[in-house]
Amino acid sequence: MDDLNQPTEAAVGGRRSRGERGAAGRRASRGGAGPGPSLPHITRKIRVYAVLDEEGLQLIERNSDTILEEIGIEFRDDAEALELWAKAGADVRGQRVHFPKGLCRELLKTAPSEFTWHARNPERSVHIGGKATVFAPVYGPPFVRDLDGERRYATIEDFRNFVKLAYMAPSMHSSGGTVCEPVDVPVNKRHLDMIYSHIKYSDKPFMGSVTAPERAEDTIAMAKMVFGDEFVENNCVTLNLINANSPMVFDETMLGALKVYARHNQACVVSPFILSGAMSPVTVAGTLTQILAEVLAGAALTQLVRPGAPVLFGTFAASISMQSGAPTFGTPEPSLVSYGAAQLARRLGLPFRTGGSLCASKVPDAQAAHESSNTLNTTLLAGTNFVLHAAGWLEGGLVSSYEKFMIDQDQLGMMQKLAEGVDLSEAGQALDAIREVGPGSHYLGCAHTQAHFQTAFYRSALADNNSFEQWEIEGQKRIEERANALCRSWLDAYEAPPLDPAIDEALLTFIASRKESMPDAFT
Amino acid sequence: MDDLNQPTEAAVGGRRSRGERGAAGRRASRGGAGPGPSLPHITRKIRVYAVLDEEGLQLIERNSDTILEEIGIEFRDDAEALELWAKAGADVRGQRVHFPKGLCRELLKTAPSEFTWHARNPERSVHIGGKATVFAPVYGPPFVRDLDGERRYATIEDFRNFVKLAYMAPSMHSSGGTVCEPVDVPVNKRHLDMIYSHIKYSDKPFMGSVTAPERAEDTIAMAKMVFGDEFVENNCVTLNLINANSPMVFDETMLGALKVYARHNQACVVSPFILSGAMSPVTVAGTLTQILAEVLAGAALTQLVRPGAPVLFGTFAASISMQSGAPTFGTPEPSLVSYGAAQLARRLGLPFRTGGSLCASKVPDAQAAHESSNTLNTTLLAGTNFVLHAAGWLEGGLVSSYEKFMIDQDQLGMMQKLAEGVDLSEAGQALDAIREVGPGSHYLGCAHTQAHFQTAFYRSALADNNSFEQWEIEGQKRIEERANALCRSWLDAYEAPPLDPAIDEALLTFIASRKESMPDAFT
Repeated sequence: MDDLNQPTEAAVGGRRSRGERGAAGRRASRGGAGPGPSLPHITRKIRVYAVLDEEGLQLIERNSDTILEEIGIEFRDDAEALELWAKAGADVRGQRVHFPKGLCRELLKTAPSEFTWHARNPERSVHIGGKATVFAPVYGPPFVRDLDGERRYATIEDFRNFVKLAYMAPSMHSSGGTVCEPVDVPVNKRHLDMIYSHIKYSDKPFMGSVTAPERAEDTIAMAKMVFGDEFVENNCVTLNLINANSPMVFDETMLGALKVYARHNQACVVSPFILSGAMSPVTVAGTLTQILAEVLAGAALTQLVRPGAPVLFGTFAASISMQSGAPTFGTPEPSLVSYGAAQLARRLGLPFRTGGSLCASKVPDAQAAHESSNTLNTTLLAGTNFVLHAAGWLEGGLVSSYEKFMIDQDQLGMMQKLAEGVDLSEAGQALDAIREVGPGSHYLGCAHTQAHFQTAFYRSALADNNSFEQWEIEGQKRIEERANALCRSWLDAYEAPPLDPAIDEALLTFIASRKESMPDAFT
Repeated sequence: MDDLNQPTEAAVGGRRSRGERGAAGRRASRGGAGPGPSLPHITRKIRVYAVLDEEGLQLIERNSDTILEEIGIEFRDDAEALELWAKAGADVRGQRVHFPKGLCRELLKTAPSEFTWHARNPERSVHIGGKATVFAPVYGPPFVRDLDGERRYATIEDFRNFVKLAYMAPSMHSSGGTVCEPVDVPVNKRHLDMIYSHIKYSDKPFMGSVTAPERAEDTIAMAKMVFGDEFVENNCVTLNLINANSPMVFDETMLGALKVYARHNQACVVSPFILSGAMSPVTVAGTLTQILAEVLAGAALTQLVRPGAPVLFGTFAASISMQSGAPTFGTPEPSLVSYGAAQLARRLGLPFRTGGSLCASKVPDAQAAHESSNTLNTTLLAGTNFVLHAAGWLEGGLVSSYEKFMIDQDQLGMMQKLAEGVDLSEAGQALDAIREVGPGSHYLGCAHTQAHFQTAFYRSALADNNSFEQWEIEGQKRIEERANALCRSWLDAYEAPPLDPAIDEALLTFIASRKESMPDAFT
């Protein structure tokens, strides 16, 4: 940014020959530097926003206790989880567990309210909980919308690309997990290539595989090659997405992964997967009540497996269209759910996950942006600690979109700036500038502006703020076209972070040996 | 909505032949009913969001007092305003007025903190101040982007169309003012046709002309034909946008309009027009300090003209690109300005104006939507009372866009729903539903869902939540294409609200006579 001229009055009219994109393009092309250095996770200096008062919170907590006691939660597990619950004093009837009042809360007292999620590059380690907010990319889509505009099944090449983009995006604080499903790799071997890609192509913290207990064990094994055995057993190096099969069920796959990760001291993000109206009541309060009950039960189980294992209060807030049953995103009700769930999580003393840049749109148009922006603004102000799906999510999570990833990561930068709050220092007050300029003049050239203009405002590399005429000359491009070009330039400029060749070798040998032992089937 | 089938489990997969748009289309086409009945203004049941603590607020207030006392504000007026200030005890040097500490705040004690903005249809009257939020359309653009995709100068026909659309949009609570500049009408006569259009084609409350004192007088004269002389002199029937010529100047045009409206007890929205970095310091705190000083001086003048005249604390929060000087919107810094200014306004006891759906984009793409959504979410949570530019704003306010109007008004509906907060009634708690459904089942057919699904979730008429396959069959439409179609169907379905023929006649006679007396010039 050192090459930027100081602003001039003449430029204010918006008629000019060189715009922000020009500057961004120059930055990106200069020495293949890409988008600039990664930022640390957000440490919020702004307040959280709350939608429930004390009375409302207590009401929902009481109702959740009623669910846990009267209705119970199903653990569709082999015997282990059920035995743990019985031993802890719960009333186990078949797979249905009924919880004496207060049991889950009591168990959760051993769960840490804040912890470090370690990256292989210590500078990229992030804080989970408290005032920290950590962004992670989209998780799970089997499809991509690629840079040629095609919607197709995702491949391992796409997977690597999204890892690279997340590595390069300054405000993306983690590498995420299943940034897309590499369907060209057999499903039983896929996790090995995914974990390897996160380690090889990024040095930001990554998520583990949860689709089977043995894949979770493979994740742990590979993490140990990077971090060392003892370090992994005593520190969090993976976050792991454990969805409840709402309403009020945890299935065998998720419980299997939960137990592996908790046993190895890795963090579980216990997340009721809820489309309100289908998996929960059509009301916000009813949905919150069920979410709290499900999280209490699932998160408490991690503490039965290993007291002190890190665990997050997860929420996936969406609704359905009551006309069609289709999932909807970015509407007001899920925003209220996220705000309320964040409050409940804080009272429980657990780090909180919700939100992201969710949308139902098939393309990165204004629908996608409105839905994503409604979700993301809510996510930030709710005080969310871990934000999955922060960039790249399209079409209800069926598609990872390159263009939308770029647009979203720009918005994440804005949120990071917003979270800094208001600078009330003497420089922030700027009284001298106001004195210097006085009535009827302007601030463009004043000393205060010259001293602070480089860091004053968030700079978007994608927003076109040029005059209409300039925009016309430059080809009347929509933001997704600019995002497409920027994405290509990032991928061109990508340089892998260094990785100890011995570790790389060990990982590749492990993967080869594990793949050898598996049937070569897409099942 | 009575024709909607109850949802079925089969529909949840998202594969279906009929979508929300289909339903909306049917609603719109049934008896030409259009978009459904107008909603009353928002009465917020959610909290406001704040970014400044008591210490920060006091600091900014102290600094504003310093500006008022030491630097002063320029009133570029004929002698009247300056004489009023001198008489009130201010130190007037030329056109520069210096204010003894506390003078403006003292004067503002006579300004009402809440009042009614009357519509010619009493059912459409709105509350200004307190927990009320009122949306108004875009104000000021000389261009439109029309339904054929052309960007061209606006006409009186466009003006009428935007009045009609604002009349029809359920969550648009007022008719606004200069919804676009009808440049096909001479500038000296234009205001007559604009005011007439608001009265004739809508029955929602409207804004007055501010471009010259005599045009303000014409507005009052026409309002009196509708509301009666005495009613106008004792009630607010117009809101009027009085921009400060920041930094720290009020110009003759604005002061002329301010004096007319205050004298007739009409509300002035005293709004520093600020692009931070050009018209104010590059910092949030510095910008807030200047805004507060400007509003204090401008708003206090209304009370010198007529104690008790309604006046709003206005803010127009945007920044400039420090690279190009071009205005930018929807970035983090203006959001912080809006939150902070809302706090300052509440402490001053004045209703607050900021925000809207602002953007720099040239087309209603994801840039436009992100910028608008960031602005609008902030606007609502700040507790803004009057929201100008709530729909239709494009290209930094140079363009009124039909398509964007439709997309924005849908978002306003979402904000209106969000503002209702969390229903904690027994129905809202939904404990019986959770009991009825139990683990592993679903809520689609349960009694609670059947009782509440029609009002449970905000229904967008523009969002496409269908499956990809369905969306493909329907032509892979982007939201602006659906907005275009919906806009055409609204304009087709438009029916004017009844207007007493005698009033209509009187207005037309007045306009003809006034136009007769004016030179037929475009100046």
